Amino acid sequence: MQEIKVTLTTQKKEKPAADKLGFGNYFTDHMFVMDYYADKGWVDPRIVPLANLSLSPAAVVLHYGQEIFEGMKAYHTPAGKAVLFRPEKNMERLNLSADRLCLPKVDEAFCVEAIKKLVAIDEDWIPEGENTSLYIRPFMIGVDAHLGVHPAKHCMFIVIMSPVGSYYKEGLDPVKIFVEQEYVRAVRGGYGFTKTGGNYSASLKSQEKAEGMGYSQVLWLDGVERKYIEEVGTMNVMFKINGEVLTPSLQGSILGGITRMSCLELLRAKGYKATERRISLQEIVDAAHNGTLEEAFGTGTAAVISPIGELIVGDEHIVINNGKIGETAQMLYDTITGIQNGLIPDEFGWVQEVK
Amino acid sequence: MQEIKVTLTTQKKEKPAADKLGFGNYFTDHMFVMDYYADKGWVDPRIVPLANLSLSPAAVVLHYGQEIFEGMKAYHTPAGKAVLFRPEKNMERLNLSADRLCLPKVDEAFCVEAIKKLVAIDEDWIPEGENTSLYIRPFMIGVDAHLGVHPAKHCMFIVIMSPVGSYYKEGLDPVKIFVEQEYVRAVRGGYGFTKTGGNYSASLKSQEKAEGMGYSQVLWLDGVERKYIEEVGTMNVMFKINGEVLTPSLQGSILGGITRMSCLELLRAKGYKATERRISLQEIVDAAHNGTLEEAFGTGTAAVISPIGELIVGDEHIVINNGKIGETAQMLYDTITGIQNGLIPDEFGWVQEVK
Repeated sequence: MQEIKVTLTTQKKEKPAADKLGFGNYFTDHMFVMDYYADKGWVDPRIVPLANLSLSPAAVVLHYGQEIFEGMKAYHTPAGKAVLFRPEKNMERLNLSADRLCLPKVDEAFCVEAIKKLVAIDEDWIPEGENTSLYIRPFMIGVDAHLGVHPAKHCMFIVIMSPVGSYYKEGLDPVKIFVEQEYVRAVRGGYGFTKTGGNYSASLKSQEKAEGMGYSQVLWLDGVERKYIEEVGTMNVMFKINGEVLTPSLQGSILGGITRMSCLELLRAKGYKATERRISLQEIVDAAHNGTLEEAFGTGTAAVISPIGELIVGDEHIVINNGKIGETAQMLYDTITGIQNGLIPDEFGWVQEVK
Repeated sequence: MQEIKVTLTTQKKEKPAADKLGFGNYFTDHMFVMDYYADKGWVDPRIVPLANLSLSPAAVVLHYGQEIFEGMKAYHTPAGKAVLFRPEKNMERLNLSADRLCLPKVDEAFCVEAIKKLVAIDEDWIPEGENTSLYIRPFMIGVDAHLGVHPAKHCMFIVIMSPVGSYYKEGLDPVKIFVEQEYVRAVRGGYGFTKTGGNYSASLKSQEKAEGMGYSQVLWLDGVERKYIEEVGTMNVMFKINGEVLTPSLQGSILGGITRMSCLELLRAKGYKATERRISLQEIVDAAHNGTLEEAFGTGTAAVISPIGELIVGDEHIVINNGKIGETAQMLYDTITGIQNGLIPDEFGWVQEVK
């Protein structure tokens, strides 16, 4: 493995108060950077003081969106250890995204080590308040100065970190979700399964519309028939109908969430029936009407679990579980954050200590 | 209108030889830059020496692909005047893209003036060789340092310029195009009609595959039924069948090309039958088999007209017009480049002089 050169800052920043964090507004003192050249591979891995990037105005990423990212979190256990949650899964997915976007693959184990080293250096940035954590954002961009539409030959892999509170202002209170029937996020044959900028830029217009009507996020339908449920804004989605937990199967247009995967593993370990399959919007509406829709919630790294209290389908407002968090969502939230924070034994081996 | 502040470079770069240009490899001495703040609108329009941008590693554009662009060209007429081709159409389309990507709209007339001023300053960068021009790349990016998925509140509109030769190494020689039946570029309800990074990042994998097999570009099919023709890589596409020119109608997933529009106007003015409608791949294959497929060509700012000599559909190689440029493609190329270069009278009022 290559050696990571470390240059520490001489000007440590003041840390924001734990109750004023919001999401992704503040950044730690250092970042990890590594360059890729088509003829040399990955070179010069380094931890340096957080600073602006100097990019050509012709850089591929600014014109043709050649960019991928990951999202993960670091926590402090009660014993004061800094830990990561399934970081190897993030690096595995980063390489999946890289392949689809013609970006170079990384050495997954090396990148996990680099992230651990970065967290260790900025460990005092892990916030201590309730529902807080240190959000870690690895990302990769193509930076060649070239206007032909071709994969970049010079790329950068960068990791920045941000102390965060809840992703939604609602915290763990149920959110209202608007079912988007006009705009589409992704389609089979596209890159909906990756974490690339284009999936998120596609969502902005719809998200703005939903927020303008007072809703937190949108629920996407499939791009072909526009009747099957895909995912919610920045989260995967799960429904509990008649005691069974349902979530859309991964078919190329949906992100394979690591929280989604962890929820499914947890549910099955605890004896719940948890099924991945195609789910039509009509099925959810019918279940609401006949009284079998017990819960709905989003799953994702940023919010962990976000209960859905209301689903807006055209003119109909479907209130779920009287607008309160359900027992399954609460159990998943408590268990996952408990494991992440070291309050519950890590039976699955999901947590890795930052040395 | 706001005043454009001009700061000229003190170090003019050496210009590349006209026969060594390629596409988008070299950049002129200056760029236009303007900032947008949600609370102030567009401020500080300026022409400055071309330089790298200093961007936060958390800038929205690097993570969520909030970026749009345009492509246009400047030419020298035989009388030595620098001219632009329908620049108001580019700024109109920029605003269409801006709306879909939640970026701020620009004052179209002001931006045309800014581009003219920039071209006038770097006029000696307009190359003089055959098939050369000065490619102009206006683009807009969201630059807030914020990791929540929201439209940026600080954006930049920038114009850079590059002296270019032919987009394809083939020049006006017919290219081989691979019909993509696995990957999808865009879908109705998405943003296929805009010039945003995500459409181009989606194409890289497929483009790489096609190039690996020895073909120049891919022909995209619709994302829903995967049987209707959409566009070719960086161009719109036209077919001549039985004397009639056909091109896919604009339905939200196809770029409304300005060269496409100009070709349709020209064809109709010259008495050709030119039709915009849905065209299935099968219809093209059938026309090839029964001998009525006379021509196929791409249209776009970068290549102007690019004749298609061969279409690869699965295992079948359809050779069009014996692999030679057809009379319609040649007429369109000669007429449009003739008008652009001032060799043919501009009956349509398409050309604007850079004062």
